Amino acid sequence: MTSDQHLRLVHAADHATRRGIDAMLVSPGPDLRYLTGYDAKPLERLTCLVLQGGKTPFMVVPALERPAAEASGVAELGIEIVTWQETEDPYAVIADRIGSHTPTLAYDNHMWAEKVLAFADAMPGAQQVLAGTVLGALRMRKSATEIDLLREAGDAIDRVHARMGEWLRPGRTERAVADDIAAAIIDEGHVAVDFVIVGSGPNGASPHHDVSDRVIGDDEPVVVDIGGTTEAGYCSDSTRTYVTGTTAPSDFSDYYAVLLHAQQAQCEYVRPGVTAASVDKVGRDIIESAGYGEAFLHRTGHGIGIETHEEPYIVDGNELVLEAGMAFSIEPGIYLAGRHGARIEDIVVCTDDGAQRLNQRPRDIGYLGG
Amino acid sequence: MTSDQHLRLVHAADHATRRGIDAMLVSPGPDLRYLTGYDAKPLERLTCLVLQGGKTPFMVVPALERPAAEASGVAELGIEIVTWQETEDPYAVIADRIGSHTPTLAYDNHMWAEKVLAFADAMPGAQQVLAGTVLGALRMRKSATEIDLLREAGDAIDRVHARMGEWLRPGRTERAVADDIAAAIIDEGHVAVDFVIVGSGPNGASPHHDVSDRVIGDDEPVVVDIGGTTEAGYCSDSTRTYVTGTTAPSDFSDYYAVLLHAQQAQCEYVRPGVTAASVDKVGRDIIESAGYGEAFLHRTGHGIGIETHEEPYIVDGNELVLEAGMAFSIEPGIYLAGRHGARIEDIVVCTDDGAQRLNQRPRDIGYLGG
Repeated sequence: MTSDQHLRLVHAADHATRRGIDAMLVSPGPDLRYLTGYDAKPLERLTCLVLQGGKTPFMVVPALERPAAEASGVAELGIEIVTWQETEDPYAVIADRIGSHTPTLAYDNHMWAEKVLAFADAMPGAQQVLAGTVLGALRMRKSATEIDLLREAGDAIDRVHARMGEWLRPGRTERAVADDIAAAIIDEGHVAVDFVIVGSGPNGASPHHDVSDRVIGDDEPVVVDIGGTTEAGYCSDSTRTYVTGTTAPSDFSDYYAVLLHAQQAQCEYVRPGVTAASVDKVGRDIIESAGYGEAFLHRTGHGIGIETHEEPYIVDGNELVLEAGMAFSIEPGIYLAGRHGARIEDIVVCTDDGAQRLNQRPRDIGYLGG
Repeated sequence: MTSDQHLRLVHAADHATRRGIDAMLVSPGPDLRYLTGYDAKPLERLTCLVLQGGKTPFMVVPALERPAAEASGVAELGIEIVTWQETEDPYAVIADRIGSHTPTLAYDNHMWAEKVLAFADAMPGAQQVLAGTVLGALRMRKSATEIDLLREAGDAIDRVHARMGEWLRPGRTERAVADDIAAAIIDEGHVAVDFVIVGSGPNGASPHHDVSDRVIGDDEPVVVDIGGTTEAGYCSDSTRTYVTGTTAPSDFSDYYAVLLHAQQAQCEYVRPGVTAASVDKVGRDIIESAGYGEAFLHRTGHGIGIETHEEPYIVDGNELVLEAGMAFSIEPGIYLAGRHGARIEDIVVCTDDGAQRLNQRPRDIGYLGG
């Protein structure tokens, strides 16, 4: 993806300049991966890409990391590698090169506080903003290549859901089921397991419950929300709600029908020109008018790409206008505390023709018994 | 470890007050685990412990994470849980509770820049410092329980090194060997693999090389630096240098003897009252006077505990005086670019009787051939 990344560097520097940013400072993490492909581990020794409009980008790297930085191909992107020795101050090195004494600095959103404060000390009086104001906007508009990589990730997690009947059975603990799912996430085409939520019965009513030693009962609703990262570095995330038997509690079936209707309506509503908040509202209105408004505890969704959670967030108050190429989850849920819950989640891409779903597994109640 | 953590909260708040900190803000990460045991994932939604001298600590938590926060036992530590809804501003909630308009805020060292800047916006004029100035000092003085847990981690990684002959053979790639080592790290008593470095031949001359598809040759020096995290949350980290045969290159044997002498001298030198810098110097002097000064590319070591790298750093310029209970690596190395390298690493605990090593594997050249 070197040519992609070359363009990204140019766009990032260009957008930064237009926003009055003198230097964008990017430490190891998703933004550095996005811009350079360098997947450095965030550590106490400073590694930092510095982007300045009209100047050659450079990356400050601990001397002992130079071989890793070189192997990642950053030099081929035209990035100068500047190494620092164990007893040098890399913040002073960067401040010297930036030159201006009161620059406007943009930090990558995940930069550690210790590095943020060290930059502020090295350049007192600097204005400080987030690189996310520039990079978030770039990252949320996916290229055709990125959409393909997200589709591959979606297919991989769909293959895991397709096998759920192998593992999700009454009498097993959530943890045992989750361990099997985790192994399958790798087997079916990911290099990392990002999360495995198996919420059975009352645990399904806690949206971010992950797993427990609870033994799963007969005819119980179970929320299964799973995701991983593929070799190419893109994330999957899909939720289906199963029942460990052939019969569901009747109130569950009632609200599940509402939820399915809401999720479907939201997916149909997505198109360029509508706001993120309005997508949330379409589903919330349906769930509220069926009397479950209080039980839809969270936002509708989040963007996805090289991180599981990134912009755009599909949440009340976010007036961002959707564009073709944006990818995000549509995952309304209904949760009855102490009883059970349900969530249906697909990743969708906004296209000129509306939402294209990247998850294809059936969305009705997943009865596993028989 | 609830009683440990209760004491830690009290000490942290107390030390913070003495340093003029009005509020310590701790987001998910090692500091939050250390203080509360809550192993929350760092995400875009704010979770944050707020410690203020003389006041009840509270933790701001997204509404949908409340069950997870409760399950972690933070309430039993006397921490009030304050939830926020998707459309609320949790930074404003915290600013309101802190009250003072220009407080001195201490951020945990790994807090994301986006949260640091949001706090700065919510409390304009606030002084900003790092919680590490307080928490680093607490975390680097290990309790007897913590030393036991580090010893268990050391034993676990020693068991992996003891099995190296099963995997490290000429004709295999570094990556294949590393995959076997990674599986053994889990099998021998860790829940996570933190890193696996297999640097064969010239790759051993790059201290932070991890693995490659290079096929390991006969009679080659191979640096193997490995570590993981145990169920209790403590880290292991130990390096041995092997030779895939019965004969090593003669220059390798020469400098290995120097390295072994230096590492031994450094371990013998460690005691309460000496500085971190002086421990580094003891080894560096030996290596320099043998003519390999330029080839010792990095500091001597780093502290270890719930993170692989934490204070104290054993590096030139660090005048920190060592105390009983501090745990850190002693890991000098000699690297001949393009040829091969060697490193010997043990975790040691500073005690009143000097250094106690937590790794016990033989330290001479690990000949694997025969």
